[in-house]
Amino acid sequence: MTELKVIDLEQKALALLQADADKIFKLIDVQMENLTMPQCPLYEEVLDTQMFGLSREVEYAVRLGLIEEEIGREIMGSLERKLADLHEMFNNK
Amino acid sequence: MTELKVIDLEQKALALLQADADKIFKLIDVQMENLTMPQCPLYEEVLDTQMFGLSREVEYAVRLGLIEEEIGREIMGSLERKLADLHEMFNNK
Repeated sequence: MTELKVIDLEQKALALLQADADKIFKLIDVQMENLTMPQCPLYEEVLDTQMFGLSREVEYAVRLGLIEEEIGREIMGSLERKLADLHEMFNNK
Repeated sequence: MTELKVIDLEQKALALLQADADKIFKLIDVQMENLTMPQCPLYEEVLDTQMFGLSREVEYAVRLGLIEEEIGREIMGSLERKLADLHEMFNNK
């Protein structure tokens, strides 16, 4: 019963991070779909801020021992690759 | 034994937040001690960024149920009051 609670915490820790990462994925998707619109410099600022915020959550979860460092790196890495795709799309526009 | 583990997590969640808040307190102290030096605009940027990062950690801990919302508000509130003191010192310089 109590052991389940720790497992629940680990699952919730990961689920929350994935939900926050998904929000950033959606922000990037919106920006990709609007590539024909004038580029808004504030958008990049918003993405950077959100990425920083998520990275602090990930680090915190790792320090708490609720998620593996490797999983944290994967979450941030997948977002960084998506952001790189967005930048490439802009450069090829 | 396992129940202790959840309690340990709660204690660690709070200890990590307090350690991070202390780092920001020290940043503010350094800035207060150097009031006679030319004001560095980047310093305010650094403090804002660190405050934002900590607020995300606090929110995350609250969402995980590891700390009470009220405790989180107190941690952020004490830092905001300290920052307000710093601004007042600058204005009265």
